[in-house]
Amino acid sequence: KPAKGVQKARIELGQKLFFDQRLSRSGAIACNSCHNLARGGSDNLKSSIGHKWNIGPINSPTVLNAKYNFVQFWDGRAKDLREQAGGPIANPGEMGSTHPVAVQALKSIPEYVQWFDAAYAGTGVTIANVQDALASFEETLVTPGARFDQYLRGDEHALTAQEKQGYQLFKDKGCVACHNGPAVGGGSFQKFGVVTPYEKDVTTLGRYNVTKVETDKYVFKVPTLRNIALTYPYFHDGSVWTLEEAVDIMAKHQLGLTLSRPENAALVAFLKTLTGKQPQLSYPLLPPSTVDTPHPEMD
Amino acid sequence: KPAKGVQKARIELGQKLFFDQRLSRSGAIACNSCHNLARGGSDNLKSSIGHKWNIGPINSPTVLNAKYNFVQFWDGRAKDLREQAGGPIANPGEMGSTHPVAVQALKSIPEYVQWFDAAYAGTGVTIANVQDALASFEETLVTPGARFDQYLRGDEHALTAQEKQGYQLFKDKGCVACHNGPAVGGGSFQKFGVVTPYEKDVTTLGRYNVTKVETDKYVFKVPTLRNIALTYPYFHDGSVWTLEEAVDIMAKHQLGLTLSRPENAALVAFLKTLTGKQPQLSYPLLPPSTVDTPHPEMD
Repeated sequence: KPAKGVQKARIELGQKLFFDQRLSRSGAIACNSCHNLARGGSDNLKSSIGHKWNIGPINSPTVLNAKYNFVQFWDGRAKDLREQAGGPIANPGEMGSTHPVAVQALKSIPEYVQWFDAAYAGTGVTIANVQDALASFEETLVTPGARFDQYLRGDEHALTAQEKQGYQLFKDKGCVACHNGPAVGGGSFQKFGVVTPYEKDVTTLGRYNVTKVETDKYVFKVPTLRNIALTYPYFHDGSVWTLEEAVDIMAKHQLGLTLSRPENAALVAFLKTLTGKQPQLSYPLLPPSTVDTPHPEMD
Repeated sequence: KPAKGVQKARIELGQKLFFDQRLSRSGAIACNSCHNLARGGSDNLKSSIGHKWNIGPINSPTVLNAKYNFVQFWDGRAKDLREQAGGPIANPGEMGSTHPVAVQALKSIPEYVQWFDAAYAGTGVTIANVQDALASFEETLVTPGARFDQYLRGDEHALTAQEKQGYQLFKDKGCVACHNGPAVGGGSFQKFGVVTPYEKDVTTLGRYNVTKVETDKYVFKVPTLRNIALTYPYFHDGSVWTLEEAVDIMAKHQLGLTLSRPENAALVAFLKTLTGKQPQLSYPLLPPSTVDTPHPEMD
C-alpha cells in the first residue's frame, strides 16, 4: 500500500486523466463524458455517444460507488476498476484510441511526465499506471450520507413513513436478495427475466459474451441502487426513464409480482433516499499539448 | 445594474448552464465541450465536433477574456456575449437544439425554475435569461496576472531579456497595430492576407457573410492573444499547431515580413508571457431531469 502522499498524488493525477479528452482519438471524449460527475456519474443517455457518434450497445453505468462492484462492466468482463479503465480508451466505438497512442500523448506533455514520476517512482507513464491512477481517483467517488444511511445508523426521523414502508417492501418482496451490500447492488450476476422473460431486448447477451455458457444469456451484473434517482435511464438497455416504470418491470420480470400503486409509490420513495452526498470536485486545469502530442483525429 | 446578490445568482446559474449538456439536442454537448475551461477555454481541435459528429466550419475561439471582444464570433455576427450565447444552442451543426426546447428542458427541472426565479425575478426561465446568465458567467472568465501584466505594472524582472526583446519586436514590426487593448486583440476586424493573400483557405469568407460587401471577404475579428499558448491550433481554420509557425504566417501575410529565427523565437517567447491565471472553478452538480424533460435525441 503506497504512502499517503503518494496515494494523494495518484488520486490527483487520476482526476486530471479522468477529465482529459486526450485519452481519446478525437481529443473530444473523456472518461467524464460518459461518467459525468455533474450528473450522478453517468451521462443520462440511453447509451453513450462514442467516436464518430457511435451509439454504444449498452447503458453507461455510474462511476459513483463503482469500487463496491464485485466485477466491472454489465457483463463483468473486467475484474476491477484498474482493468476496466483500460477498456474504453481502446474501444473503437468509445474513445477510439489505442493504449500506445494514449501513453505517447501523455509522455509528450512535461507536466504529466512529472506527475507520473511523482506518483509512480521508477515506472512513469505506462498504461498500467494510467489505469491505476484512474482507478485510484474512482475509488474516492463514494456518496456517503444518504438518508437511508442516516436511518440505518439509528436516525428514525431520516425517513418518512412512506419511505420506511418502501424499505419494508424492498425486503419483503425480495428486491434485497440481489440489491444488497454497501452499494445496494453490484455484488452478483443475475438473469434479467428470471421469472418472466424480458423480451424488449433479446440481442444483448450479457455475461454469455464472456463465458459462452448458455445459462449466462441475459445475465448481467446487478447494478448499484445508490443514487438511482440520478442515473436514469434504467437497465442495461436504458429503455426506461422513470423509477415508477423500472420498479414495476423489476417486480414483474425478476419476482413475478404485480405491485399495487401504493406499493410502487412507497418503493420509489425509498429508492430516492439512496441519493448520497455527491463528490464536490474542482474542475482541473489541464496542461497544454506540445509539438510531440498526437493531433486529434476525427475519422 | 443588478444588486450584488442577484448578480452572484446569475453567475452561479450561468456556470451550471455552461456545463449542462441538456442545452443540446443529444444531451451530450455543453458550452464547455467546445469552450473547455480545463483547456484555455477552447477545445484544442482544428474545428469543433457538433451534433451527429458534425465537424464545424471554423475554429472555436476561447471564451476566456471574450468579454473584451468588441463583437463575437470570427465574423462578428453577434454584438455581444448575450447574443452569442444563443447561437450554438440552436445551430443544427453545433448543439442542435432549439430555443423553445432548451427552455422547455430547463422549465421541467424544479431547481432551475427556482434559480431562474431568484436570479430573474418576474421573468423566470426565458431564452433571454438563459443567454444573460451564460454571459454573466462568461464575463467572470478573465485571466489576470500574466507575466506580461506584471511587467507592464513595473516589475522589470517579470520578463526575461528574450521576452522583452519579443515585446519590442511585437511593437516595432507592427503586430500591435491589431493585437492591442485589454485582450491584446479582439478590438477590430482585419483581413487575413492584408499583404500576401492567404491561399490555404479561400472558402471561409468571414465578415463578408454578414455584410455581403466584397472588401469584407477574408475579414475576421482579430483574436485575443491572451493565453495563446493554451488555445492552439491557430487561426480561424485551426490549421497551425505551433506558435512558431503562426508567427511566421502572420508576419508574411499581414506584414509582408520574413522574420529571422531569433526574431521568431523572441516573439514566441513574448506570446507565452500572455498566459494568465486560469479560472479555478468547482465542477457543478446538476439537478436531475424529470418526467417532463425532453429525452436526448441522437439523430
